[in-house]
Amino acid sequence: MIVEHALLHVTPARADEFESAFARARTIIASMPGFLSVTLSRGIERPSVYLLLVEWESLEDHTEGFRRSEEYQEWKQLLHHFYDPFPVVEHYAPVGSLPLQPTE
Amino acid sequence: MIVEHALLHVTPARADEFESAFARARTIIASMPGFLSVTLSRGIERPSVYLLLVEWESLEDHTEGFRRSEEYQEWKQLLHHFYDPFPVVEHYAPVGSLPLQPTE
Repeated sequence: MIVEHALLHVTPARADEFESAFARARTIIASMPGFLSVTLSRGIERPSVYLLLVEWESLEDHTEGFRRSEEYQEWKQLLHHFYDPFPVVEHYAPVGSLPLQPTE
Repeated sequence: MIVEHALLHVTPARADEFESAFARARTIIASMPGFLSVTLSRGIERPSVYLLLVEWESLEDHTEGFRRSEEYQEWKQLLHHFYDPFPVVEHYAPVGSLPLQPTE
């Protein structure tokens, strides 16, 4: 499992419109192979910033499967015009080597 | 529920040491009132960056309950010396007003 991470900058004047568009867009991404979950959260200190987290089975499910799909064109059309600046999207892998017992 | 979010910069040379320290630190934070979950993930594009996400029942459980506790002093001592620069910690609230049906 990998986590797709982006901080989305959306002017607060367009927040309602963005959240409605996202409600549609999430049904698109949720239909993709390898999709596991998506969450959208809004900044408390910075209400103009949203945190997008998408869990995928593999990196390629996002970077190749989704980004090269027709569905991605719909996602882009729904959402990308809200972003200023355009976000940096990165991927994170859960740290799985944590010992079950605290080490002394 | 709110999400505490931080991007932690740790030099790759100290990654193993940091992950071991984090394994101990997570048992500290997991014992705090209002704690719901914690995940640590490592950057794929930037292996020197870790994504820390902690779910709390309320903002105050983190900003007042945890940060003013004795346990926070232990957390700091275990982890803060790994960070360069010191991270910006922010909070995000899940967007809960999404319509269940896509809107046309």
